[in-house]
Formats: sequence, C-alpha cells, structure tokens
Amino acid sequence: MAERRVGVGLIGCGTVGGRVLTALVERRALLAARTGLLFEPVVICDKDPSREALLPGRFTADPMAAAADPRVDILVELTGGVEGPLRFVREAVRRGKSVVTANKALLSEQGEDIFRRAERAGVHVGFEASVGGAVPVIKAIRESFVGNRVTRLLAILNGTTNFILSRMTRDRLSFAEALASARSRGYAEADPTLDLSGMDAAHKLSILCRLAFGARTALRDIHVEGIAGMDSIDIAFAAEFGFRVKLLAVAERTPRGLSARVHPALLPADHILSLVEDVYNAVYLEGDMFGKTLLFGEGAGGDAAASSVVADIVEIGLKIAGGRAPAAFPPLDPKAVRAPFGETAGRSYFRFTAVDKPGVLAGISRVLGRNGISIASVMQKQEDPGKPVPIVMVTQAARERDIARALAAVDRLSIAAAPTVRLRIAD
Amino acid sequence: MAERRVGVGLIGCGTVGGRVLTALVERRALLAARTGLLFEPVVICDKDPSREALLPGRFTADPMAAAADPRVDILVELTGGVEGPLRFVREAVRRGKSVVTANKALLSEQGEDIFRRAERAGVHVGFEASVGGAVPVIKAIRESFVGNRVTRLLAILNGTTNFILSRMTRDRLSFAEALASARSRGYAEADPTLDLSGMDAAHKLSILCRLAFGARTALRDIHVEGIAGMDSIDIAFAAEFGFRVKLLAVAERTPRGLSARVHPALLPADHILSLVEDVYNAVYLEGDMFGKTLLFGEGAGGDAAASSVVADIVEIGLKIAGGRAPAAFPPLDPKAVRAPFGETAGRSYFRFTAVDKPGVLAGISRVLGRNGISIASVMQKQEDPGKPVPIVMVTQAARERDIARALAAVDRLSIAAAPTVRLRIAD
Repeated sequence: MAERRVGVGLIGCGTVGGRVLTALVERRALLAARTGLLFEPVVICDKDPSREALLPGRFTADPMAAAADPRVDILVELTGGVEGPLRFVREAVRRGKSVVTANKALLSEQGEDIFRRAERAGVHVGFEASVGGAVPVIKAIRESFVGNRVTRLLAILNGTTNFILSRMTRDRLSFAEALASARSRGYAEADPTLDLSGMDAAHKLSILCRLAFGARTALRDIHVEGIAGMDSIDIAFAAEFGFRVKLLAVAERTPRGLSARVHPALLPADHILSLVEDVYNAVYLEGDMFGKTLLFGEGAGGDAAASSVVADIVEIGLKIAGGRAPAAFPPLDPKAVRAPFGETAGRSYFRFTAVDKPGVLAGISRVLGRNGISIASVMQKQEDPGKPVPIVMVTQAARERDIARALAAVDRLSIAAAPTVRLRIAD
Repeated sequence: MAERRVGVGLIGCGTVGGRVLTALVERRALLAARTGLLFEPVVICDKDPSREALLPGRFTADPMAAAADPRVDILVELTGGVEGPLRFVREAVRRGKSVVTANKALLSEQGEDIFRRAERAGVHVGFEASVGGAVPVIKAIRESFVGNRVTRLLAILNGTTNFILSRMTRDRLSFAEALASARSRGYAEADPTLDLSGMDAAHKLSILCRLAFGARTALRDIHVEGIAGMDSIDIAFAAEFGFRVKLLAVAERTPRGLSARVHPALLPADHILSLVEDVYNAVYLEGDMFGKTLLFGEGAGGDAAASSVVADIVEIGLKIAGGRAPAAFPPLDPKAVRAPFGETAGRSYFRFTAVDKPGVLAGISRVLGRNGISIASVMQKQEDPGKPVPIVMVTQAARERDIARALAAVDRLSIAAAPTVRLRIAD
C-alpha cells in the first residue's frame, strides 16, 4: 500500500530536537508499519547555523520561514521563551498547520490564545512533552480519565530538584554539593533559578490544573516555594520521623476552591512518590472513578521528551492525513519468536530443607557448582536441633535448565528432607 | 450547539456493567461538555432478568438481539467466557457497530479474529479495561510509546494474588488465612483458580505481548506458575535478603527471542513495583526512547474498570460520530475558583532553634496552642551543651494562616536563636 506523506518542520534542534529528528529518520519504517504514514522532516531551523549538518539542504535560520513553509503539515516547536515561539506558532496555525510543542512557559502563559486560534483554524496542538517528559500524563488526563472528576494531584515535575534532594537524602550531601553534582552531570542549567525556585514545576502545574480541573491557573495563583538553601539536617530529621523530602506540586479541590501550590514537602516513606528518585518525574492522581493512579517516568533528557514529541506527531499525522487508523493490534513482528524457556537466565532464591548433619551445605554447594550455579549469599537457621534445617540461598544468574537439573539432583541427595523451594529474582 | 447522539448497548450488567451504566447516566452533562456528544444507553442485556431495573423498558435477555439492535452504535461487552461473547461481538461488527470489551480471555484467544473483522468492517474495538483496570496501559503502549521499541515489561496484573501476598508480607498471615481474608472482602471469586494459578495474569500478559512486541503469544507460549501453596516462611526469608515477593508477569526481548512468563518473583524492596500493594496493579516498561516508566492504579473493582470502559466509549464515539474533537484545553469550569491560601490546611514539620535553657519547649508549645496548632510528636536533640538546641516537631493539621501567625510569634520569643524552619507534610 502506498503510504501518505506528512511534512514535519522543526524549530529548535538542541538536545530534544536533535533526538526527534534522529527518531523520525531512523524509525521511518517502524512508524510507517504502525501508521501507514511517512513522516518526512522537510525543514529544520535553529539559531546555530552549524546545526544545518543535522539535515543538510533543509535548514533555515528564520523560524517564521519554517512556520510558513508550504511543505510543513506539522510544525514542531522546541525552543524556549514565550514571545518568539508565540509569533511563529500563531503563524503556523494561521496557515492551517498543526503544532507540537514542549514549551511549558508558552502554554502556561499563552495556552488559551493558542488553543482558541487552533480550534478556529481546525488544526491540532500536541503538548505531551511539556509536562513530565516521557510520562503520558496529558493523554491520561484528557483521554483515559475523561469520564472522571479529578479531585487531587500530587506530582514531582522537576528533575533537577528531585535529583538534588535524592542525593542529599541518599548520600547525605549538602545542598551546595548536590547542586554541584547535578551540574557536573548536566542535570542543572548554568542558571538553575527556574528549577530551584519551583517556577518550572509551577508552569507545569498550571497546565495540569487547566486539564484536570478546568481551572485557569496563572503563576500568581500558585503558592511557590523552591528548595534553594534546603538544610540537610531537616532531611535527616524528617527521615527519623519516617518521611522523605520532595519538591511537590499539589493541586486539590477543597470546599473553598482549588488549591494549587509548589513547595518542598514531607511524604511518608512508604508513599509511592517517595520512591521517585533522581531525575524521574511522577504524577499521582485521585479521581472519582479511577481511584488512585501513578504515572512515573523519565522527566528529562532528549530521548524521553522526544518519545512524547514523536507520539504527538504520529497522533496528529493520523488525524490530518486520514491515514488508516492503526488497527487495535499492531502488525505482527515476524522476528518475535519465542525464546526457549530453558535458556531464560536470572538469579534465584532457594530454600533447601536438609537433615541436621555436618557437611550438608558442602553437599548442596557441590551439586550447584557442578551445574554452573554460583552462590551469592547463604543463610542457615538452626531452630530445633535434630530437626530438618532450612538453608536459604540467593544465587548469581543461571539458566532455567541448569537450575532444574541441579535442584532435581539436590532433591535426590540423602540429606534432602523435603523438596527444594525455588523462587525467581526479578531485578 | 446541538449535540450528536451515540447509542450504547451493554451486555453484562454486573459490577462493572452497572457502574458503566450509572456513569453514562449521571455524567451525561459532563461528557457532553467535554466531547459535544450525548452518550445514550439504548439497550441493556443480562442473564438475570431482575437487572431490567437498571434501565426499565430497555432490557433484553438475548445478547444477539442487543448486538443487532439498530439503535446501538457501540456495543459494550462485559461478560465472561469466550464462545458466547465471540458470537455477539462478531454479530455487532458484521452490522457495522464498534465494540468495547473488558474480556481478556476473549481477546487473548480470539483477538486476531475480532480485530481482522473489525478492520474489514471499518469499526473500532476498545479494550483498555481488559488489562490493569483503570491503568491506561493499552493506550500508553499503542499511542504514547508508538515511536519506541519496548524491550522489557514487568507487571503486577492480578489484584487477588497481590492482595494475598501483601497480607502474607505485611500481616504475616499464612496463605490460607490471606485467601480467606481476600474472600471475605470480595477480592476472590468463589473459585479463585484462574487468579491463583496465574492464568488470569497470563491472559493479560498475552494481550500486552501482542501490543508491545508484536508477538502472537498464546497461553501455551507463556511459562505460568501461580502462588497456591506459597509458604510464608519464604516471604520472611526473602525479606531478610531485602526482597518482596510478587506474582509478576514478565516479557522481555532476549537474544533468543521473546521470553514471556508469569511466576512469583523476588523484587528488591526499593524497586518501585515492591510498593504496589493490595489490589493495585502496575506495569513497568522499558523502551528504547522513553527509558523506564511505571503505570500504577486500581486493577479491580467496578469503578476502576468502568473508568476505562467509559474512556473507550468516548474515544470511539468521537471517531464515529465525528463530534468536534475535544479542544486541547477542555471547557473552563466556572466553579473552579482559587482557594484562599491561608485556609489551606495540613500537617507540618517544624525545626525550632532555641537557646539552651529550661522551659523553652513549654514556651514554644504555649504559642502553638494559642494559635490552635496541636503537636503530634516532638524530638529534642541536645548535641553541645550551652549551644542552641534544635527542637523538631510534627503537628496535626493546621491552617496556613494560623501557622504563619504562630511561627512569627515563636520567632519573636527571647529564646529563639534562629528563624524556625517549616516544611509541609503531604499525605
């Protein structure tokens, strides 16, 4: 079948833009198989002229020219700031092009304007990458939970601050040390004020409030406190009370209205958000049908954001090119053969039950060793002298067929008082 | 604007079906505002004739009549088994109706047949509720991660077994006691074999393998072990090694092909899946762009599944009725006013720094009490005699304005050696 073409223009070829471009080029066949459409980068634009190398001959330094390019069906905007992007997004919409953007400041401040114009022009705007990187939170709220009233939202929306707090907690670093560590890994901008002050999270929260609560929430409607100057002694004391410290974005319906705020907060250590570490993001939602849900994933990095940008491009492509809707089941992958189960390898937990006699551990270990199974740790608990003894082991990775053979041999030993219990370890 | 009508037929009016019906009736205006469509239950069908009471005058006992009803645009199938549903789903598709189903056995065994017929007939099939209840895993894999190759999937897909393992772990119950507890709360069927044997999870895994890996994975291609007879001693030993035990569904690309299996497994206690307790479900995915992601939510219960069924009905309704596409931003909710920040209430963590003198705690407590703030716990750590003392407190819920007033007063006390540090607690 002949695939239809969808022209993609890209403004901003930095970390995310570069990955989007690579994905469209390298995954052209994969996307065509899944959608029946050919996604074609037709023009790219960047302040830095050396980036022409990314797509030679299709470069312009003028974003308005890219936005107006008649070959462009979908304009992807991956720059920063508000005024510039607003101009060329409006231009694209005016010319009947759909837009994909990851610009949370633009959407937070000018979203109403952009979406009103897009609706009037009958074009689409995708913005999944603007909040939570690869986490599909916007699609979940708009589509999966469409029948719900969301009542509460707790979210970790900024990777830089979450990384800093994680290092302060786990490695007992001071704030300054943790910030330096974030910088050295490229997790903090040269000027990290937007992140540390909580303003980046507040921009994202304002978008989520608009979607989840139908509330127009400007930055001035959000109480914002950042983590600059956080003292590690408070993280340590909080831990003694059973809490972890996170920079949380919170929005909830209260009897007095919608409360929206960003501030450092103590979470019970067994709250699922407490396990969200480093640069990961997560959104925890409560709704009147779905109950409680958590969406967790990489909040930063070129690939994570590019994953969401590509999903938006594909979704809009299917809408505008009228390409065949993807079938409920995607095409079969002819290479997806079944792996032989005996070859599956992994670590294991064994509980042997042996008669209480000297040398039983040596006997068992010998059988395991002969079958190529290495022991990582072992625990033997004598409870009642004379009674059978449980011997518990964790192994290194081994193949299913070697394990089956080894355990059959152990269970035939005269020292075996009961069949071995074996559980697999998943890492 | 005049809304278009979408006729919904419903076969199976049990726990989930009943909640779907209630949601369509009670949320008619909400859904109309969000989609421009009126979702109209036009016929319901159940084995039990007393369920006519759910929608008087629109009841039939004959599923084939419901499937053939000319008023039905979308047939919702919420029964069990394979042969019966296959007949009336085929009938609906043959007559050009779209279908929504939560029947994992039907999809696992007859999905290829159903989707081929649906594609030929140009109709849609929604099945989000078939895996993971309210967790939007099917939409995420098909749409949000469309540009990715998924490489690995670890999932908790069965609420009954996860509840049993949670109670065995947390409350040190035996398997039999935990099963009895699940039964008494309605979390286990009269015959729980499908759940305990791992077969329910395997049905769901086969659907996920088809979506995530393009692999046709029949039940016989999945190595399945259940949790019947799990000994609590192994859960205790596993905990000593730092692991939690879960019934895991695993699928991963290996050099030898796709490995798919369901079995009890040990997970490191700090793995995010280890915090998935009780009847919750979760799917952890690894992909070549998005990296790692977790989708977590209620896996069972009428409302959770109904949330996903309603989302499918809405999505298909928008496709077939050509209703206006929902705007990127939903309609503003005129009632979404901003709550006054001073009225926001919650627990707090305080760290006071006081001069080392008798009576400081009493002085601070008095100020808090006067402002209506109750202390839940307090910790005072004398490190260097004569130096200022940190006094750390966790409070009961109090209002922002009372806290602000109290802390200002404390910081004016002569015993205050440094401003109080205050962090909010999120529960």
